[in-house]
Amino acid sequence: PLIALLAGDGIGPEVTAEARRVLDALTLDLIFEEALVGGAAYHATGHPLPPETLALAQRADAILFGAVGDPLCDKLERSLRPEQAILGLRKHLGLFANLRPAKLFPGLEDASALRPEVAAAIDMVIVRELNGDVYFGEKGMRTTVDGLREGYDVMSYNEAEVARIAHLGFQTAARRGGRLCSVDKANVLETSQLWRDVVIEISAHYPQVALSHMYVDNCAMQLVRNPGQFDVIVTGNLFGDILSDQASMCAGSIGMLPSASLDSAGKGLYEPIHGSAPDIAGQGRANPCATILSAAMLLRHSLGMREAADRIEAAVGRALATGARTSDLGGTLTTHAMGDAVLAQL
Amino acid sequence: PLIALLAGDGIGPEVTAEARRVLDALTLDLIFEEALVGGAAYHATGHPLPPETLALAQRADAILFGAVGDPLCDKLERSLRPEQAILGLRKHLGLFANLRPAKLFPGLEDASALRPEVAAAIDMVIVRELNGDVYFGEKGMRTTVDGLREGYDVMSYNEAEVARIAHLGFQTAARRGGRLCSVDKANVLETSQLWRDVVIEISAHYPQVALSHMYVDNCAMQLVRNPGQFDVIVTGNLFGDILSDQASMCAGSIGMLPSASLDSAGKGLYEPIHGSAPDIAGQGRANPCATILSAAMLLRHSLGMREAADRIEAAVGRALATGARTSDLGGTLTTHAMGDAVLAQL
Ligand SMILES: CC(C)[C@H](C(=O)O)[C@@H](O)C(=O)O
Ligand SMILES: CC(C)[C@H](C(=O)O)[C@@H](O)C(=O)O
Repeated sequence: PLIALLAGDGIGPEVTAEARRVLDALTLDLIFEEALVGGAAYHATGHPLPPETLALAQRADAILFGAVGDPLCDKLERSLRPEQAILGLRKHLGLFANLRPAKLFPGLEDASALRPEVAAAIDMVIVRELNGDVYFGEKGMRTTVDGLREGYDVMSYNEAEVARIAHLGFQTAARRGGRLCSVDKANVLETSQLWRDVVIEISAHYPQVALSHMYVDNCAMQLVRNPGQFDVIVTGNLFGDILSDQASMCAGSIGMLPSASLDSAGKGLYEPIHGSAPDIAGQGRANPCATILSAAMLLRHSLGMREAADRIEAAVGRALATGARTSDLGGTLTTHAMGDAVLAQL
Repeated sequence: PLIALLAGDGIGPEVTAEARRVLDALTLDLIFEEALVGGAAYHATGHPLPPETLALAQRADAILFGAVGDPLCDKLERSLRPEQAILGLRKHLGLFANLRPAKLFPGLEDASALRPEVAAAIDMVIVRELNGDVYFGEKGMRTTVDGLREGYDVMSYNEAEVARIAHLGFQTAARRGGRLCSVDKANVLETSQLWRDVVIEISAHYPQVALSHMYVDNCAMQLVRNPGQFDVIVTGNLFGDILSDQASMCAGSIGMLPSASLDSAGKGLYEPIHGSAPDIAGQGRANPCATILSAAMLLRHSLGMREAADRIEAAVGRALATGARTSDLGGTLTTHAMGDAVLAQL
């Protein structure tokens, strides 16, 4: 299988290097091809998602992604900013579903700002839609009748887009605790009303799953008050962006959490949920675990290599159990030493 | 001064009754007029915001509001639902600014799901825009070229709307810790780009305030990780809805937190941040403190009665210090008994 390795910006190269070492150690017959993406690609080629990079991503069986984001690009016009690379990959490859497990690793109770007993109860998956919503609607700057500058962005979902992600939400819940919470703002938004209507329609196919609905503001509260109440959350692109980051932080360090972005055939892009962290880039301090665990998700979801995935996840757990910690977890290990600690447990 | 008392639905009547008792005890020469709002108004008159109610709100010097929301109205068309009453009041009265202080009351460290030391550091105000954004843009259901149902809502802000709330954010910060964090999603949204541009322009008038910018997803993380880092947050209507509820929950029980919604002349609507809580309505279990503290904000912001406001806030603090607790805080007091406890300390 061909893996596109898109390391990106900031700490991206450091953390993907460790994930690659872990994959290499398993001797799985993977072929890696690297390409530039994000600010790194912009500086080298003038575009954050060069055609060669997109072509490689399309050709590959799966994509292992680091992070994009570069303060030097902040002043560029929107279409040239690093973030456009990840948005472009999601759209061009039809990666419509973002899966984010949030679970506290045993032993990391102290890494969460929540009370240990509240944090320990977290075990959920957030299923976020990635191809629609206000992210991809018509947008721009215009002038009002009074001559004022006005920015606008159209939020929308059609029933096919909602149905597709709702099915995945129900299927994910059916394989787990059997409870799906759909999050929207149907008391204010028509987009959310359609969302809710369609989710209810789709629920008829999944009698074994208990469906509930929650407004996004209430969900943001509940994720603090009692995050253990959730099994699977399904939500749109914008609310998912906010809630999944919040949930990750509830579960402890964002240095630990992986994510998968999938198309309808199971091909996917796998990336840590953290960003490029320019403040610590190049210092060898970043926690590589989120990327190593993303590599495990890649094996499981896109290559059907369940056993290898389990091995990686178990090795990360054992490495933590031996006390291996990078600085985000209050430890002193470098990125590379943390990689070593995981390799030692494989 | 004339106070419009709009008790609304669910626990609204119970909690506003206690706030009224506290205001009465101060003998401030207030005249109260009551009117129906929300589901209660719909059931009685067929509309959640009847013309008489709007007229009273317009005539009054300030509005003390309970809560709206009624499960019996869930199936009504949007324009008849209880929530339209609060949205209508905000829009018709030009209440463009929602101020939400979030601070943990001493002695309530155990009410927060955050670690006590993390929660104790919270002392911020969220300034949320209330008259624009995706709440009030064009919205509806339409059919795509492929014949699919599609819901849409237009998000937008013009520079005058942003400038108005930005000024209030800077002024609020100038009177407090001197730090303003503007929250947006400028890496994706044009509305946010305009927001950020205008906030930066306005910052020239407030050299004494340190301005920072944060993406909304990161802010949702930071409010969990280290909420003590914030002094004042200024943000749009939708992000403010989500983040202010999240911040409130970080600061402990939502039964404790008041809010003010102000127009440009200082007239305002004051309400607890919690909702109508239909599950406990009529049981006398609701915590009236958020509404009592909203009454204090009313005196301070709309009537210039600082001293009376201070007295109420101090009385709530002392009542808590004596151990007075409703069930949301792990106690056994009824709504009325909690009102008594505050009155006893006035
Ligand atoms: C970088 C940004 C455009 C992106 C998003 O908002 O989707 C990021 O926050 C994420 O969640 O992957
Ligand atoms: C009831 C609802 C329309 C309202 C809002 O979204 O503004 C509420 O959540 C609030 O924050 O006051």
